[in-house]
Amino acid sequence: MDSSKYTSRLLEKAVNEFSRLPGIGRKTALRLVLHLLRQDVSESESLADSLLQLRKEIHHCKICHNISDQEICQVCSNPDRDRSLICVVENIRDVMAIESTQQYRGVYHVLGGILSPMDGIGPANLTVGSLAERAMTGEVKEVILALSATMEGDATNFFIYRKLADSSVKITTLARGVAVGDELEFTDEITLGRSLLNRTLFEESIRKP
Amino acid sequence: MDSSKYTSRLLEKAVNEFSRLPGIGRKTALRLVLHLLRQDVSESESLADSLLQLRKEIHHCKICHNISDQEICQVCSNPDRDRSLICVVENIRDVMAIESTQQYRGVYHVLGGILSPMDGIGPANLTVGSLAERAMTGEVKEVILALSATMEGDATNFFIYRKLADSSVKITTLARGVAVGDELEFTDEITLGRSLLNRTLFEESIRKP
Repeated sequence: MDSSKYTSRLLEKAVNEFSRLPGIGRKTALRLVLHLLRQDVSESESLADSLLQLRKEIHHCKICHNISDQEICQVCSNPDRDRSLICVVENIRDVMAIESTQQYRGVYHVLGGILSPMDGIGPANLTVGSLAERAMTGEVKEVILALSATMEGDATNFFIYRKLADSSVKITTLARGVAVGDELEFTDEITLGRSLLNRTLFEESIRKP
Repeated sequence: MDSSKYTSRLLEKAVNEFSRLPGIGRKTALRLVLHLLRQDVSESESLADSLLQLRKEIHHCKICHNISDQEICQVCSNPDRDRSLICVVENIRDVMAIESTQQYRGVYHVLGGILSPMDGIGPANLTVGSLAERAMTGEVKEVILALSATMEGDATNFFIYRKLADSSVKITTLARGVAVGDELEFTDEITLGRSLLNRTLFEESIRKP
């Protein structure tokens, strides 16, 4: 798009800033900026303020690296959570997904990504070191690896498994199987094979939610 | 989405602000905010600053109501533009679309919308009054109605036509016809009918870009 078309330098600057966000092209950015111009000034101010405040005051929890308003996040500081159980996830969105199941009462460890040589993410970019430190304290009994069921996720799982091999903690991973609501004939053969190998007692399966 | 899932009040506030923008849902808003958190602080600051600056310093041109950095926009203040020719458009995006054709050397008049009783937009919400004032000065020879080819656009065209009926200006409208690149068999009958009625000399059509 030819930048000379913009009749206002301020408008062009705001569009440029918005279009740097992922998934926002120049046309969408222009639509958003023109929308803000039509709204009350307070709308733009509260959006700008929330961004500045977020970047100024946000912390990463010193224990689990989750995003938090305090130095220790509300999961780690909650006395009702089971500190002997650590769930290892890729990012905060996964924490939110697991929290919304209301099935988990342990604590988390946010890796900040998964090993991905293509994207230049190596062990140094992840918080595996601090996970190992936590696992060595003796307080922790089990580490649940809850990463994506992809090649990168499996590689990261294996990397963590080897890092924690010296500790006495039990290392588990999420069950792989047929998703609830899926039809059997459309399930891929690897998933189906694993769900056969890891079949559970029917009595147990009906007792779970 | 359950708001209690957010582990940070600041994060939730920023997500709320982003999701108020049109076409941005809560999931997209979270993705954008987490992206900004991963980037350098300066990214968030320059986005916030550009928004605040935009709302503080932007003007609507006193002559044509286009968005501008100055009180008079760069089209109206350009001595090379033909002031006797006014192109009436709905909004600034239409100005940009026409500017990008590089076929127009006149000035604009931005209505700020089109008549739409469904959306509560009546004559009072549009800048038709100031258009009539401009047309009455005697400097203007022609007003080109360049609104959308919709029912609302046609109604607005007719409303403006009647408002300017007392003046001596020539009132024209954009040519309706088969779009360049369109196949004839897929063109709707109204467009095709109009393009037959308003057929142009072949010699003229090949001289135009």
